[in-house]
Amino acid sequence: MRGMVTPRKMKVLVTGASGRIGRAFRENYRDYYSLRLIYHQTPMEASAVEEVVPADITDFDSLLKTMEGVEAVVHLAADPRVNAPWDSILKLNLVGTYNVFEAAYRYGVKKVVFASSNHACGFAVTESNLVGPDAPIRPDSLYGVSKVFGETLGRYYADRFGLSVICLRIGSCPGLDDPSEHFRMLLSGQRTHLTYSPQKLIAMWISNRDIAHLIHRSIETDLKFGIFYGTSDNTPKIFDITEAKEKLGYNPQDKAEKYLK
Amino acid sequence: MRGMVTPRKMKVLVTGASGRIGRAFRENYRDYYSLRLIYHQTPMEASAVEEVVPADITDFDSLLKTMEGVEAVVHLAADPRVNAPWDSILKLNLVGTYNVFEAAYRYGVKKVVFASSNHACGFAVTESNLVGPDAPIRPDSLYGVSKVFGETLGRYYADRFGLSVICLRIGSCPGLDDPSEHFRMLLSGQRTHLTYSPQKLIAMWISNRDIAHLIHRSIETDLKFGIFYGTSDNTPKIFDITEAKEKLGYNPQDKAEKYLK
Repeated sequence: MRGMVTPRKMKVLVTGASGRIGRAFRENYRDYYSLRLIYHQTPMEASAVEEVVPADITDFDSLLKTMEGVEAVVHLAADPRVNAPWDSILKLNLVGTYNVFEAAYRYGVKKVVFASSNHACGFAVTESNLVGPDAPIRPDSLYGVSKVFGETLGRYYADRFGLSVICLRIGSCPGLDDPSEHFRMLLSGQRTHLTYSPQKLIAMWISNRDIAHLIHRSIETDLKFGIFYGTSDNTPKIFDITEAKEKLGYNPQDKAEKYLK
Repeated sequence: MRGMVTPRKMKVLVTGASGRIGRAFRENYRDYYSLRLIYHQTPMEASAVEEVVPADITDFDSLLKTMEGVEAVVHLAADPRVNAPWDSILKLNLVGTYNVFEAAYRYGVKKVVFASSNHACGFAVTESNLVGPDAPIRPDSLYGVSKVFGETLGRYYADRFGLSVICLRIGSCPGLDDPSEHFRMLLSGQRTHLTYSPQKLIAMWISNRDIAHLIHRSIETDLKFGIFYGTSDNTPKIFDITEAKEKLGYNPQDKAEKYLK
């Protein structure tokens, strides 16, 4: 319309944009932000409003170029397998995450939202305790170790260089509007050395719109650094999302228990 | 003497044996333990009671072979520079430390003593707080990040595989019986982005015999996992060594303040 000014949108770079969490975020916020998506090798399906650029998070120079003009980075790319072997963890989750923080810092990016995981403290989960951001560091896998590494690196870049870094210990985001079948599959067999009770599956779940909203709130916050658990508003709970609600304004809409009868 | 039985000595593998902490430990305990020392490239000067074997902690296969018959590993090898660049941190401190834990686990070694550092929480130090093992994780350098990584990995190997892992957040061990000249040097110029007050230099110091004794107590303890600060019994203190005294039986003999007039 004549005379109408389109508000400038924040430029947000997303790594791992074609993963489950990346797709959930994009579906909900591709019109709100100006999204730049990284793809590696396979060209990515994207909407017309999304910018798509080739880069490899394990190749610092290729990643660095993608940071120009970026105001916030949502770093989701990783080997997401809880039983991922060391060689892959080293390359994707350790080197890749260092490259993201360092490239963001060098281009003066103000904010990094880092996808950590409940596996950072998986062995701190007991029958009786609600596990929150201050739980003792007890990763249940090399994957979990790599997520603690990313949080630690984020704390360093925040303290030393003034980046705002929000780490989200995400529960389980299968990327499905109805996770009933996903729950049944996980309960039917042994996925790793870790076992999942129905209570734990419920407690871990986060819906697409809830994870998207949580990432949005993490981008918008003025906090310099924080670690938060991210699940939907499930009952029973294992992970404490109180701080995410209070400090980030996270307002989850969904509940896993209705999908596990 | 005829009829006298020599008690069997525990076989202890030492990485970084030619560094300042390694030398301090060996000088005090080479007769108490049966020490196996790793050298890489440069052949190492060693006493006749010490076994010396070539290996590279960044080469898993070469390291694995050195674990045979070993009951405890004292892992000191690292890039020790607080301003070490990422490439070196990655190779020596991250990959090297993973290799040590994994190789020890595969050979059924029961104990790993890991040389962590006060830099794991260097940015948690304030004017008023005594920083102990439960301080928030706030590394002051990539070096500090790498030490948190080693502690995290140690926690994982302890929880998952039953290794006993003791992490020592060592203060500053210049390897000198009289650190007066060392203190003067540090106070005269800027070493890194970190600054050192006389109070901090005093608080960080650990003498040769104290670090050797602390490593000895860490080998002998039945604790499954622990993180402890390691300094001499200096005044004033910045780091809390109470738990090392109570849980490990650490009994420091020296005080830095007598060397800084």
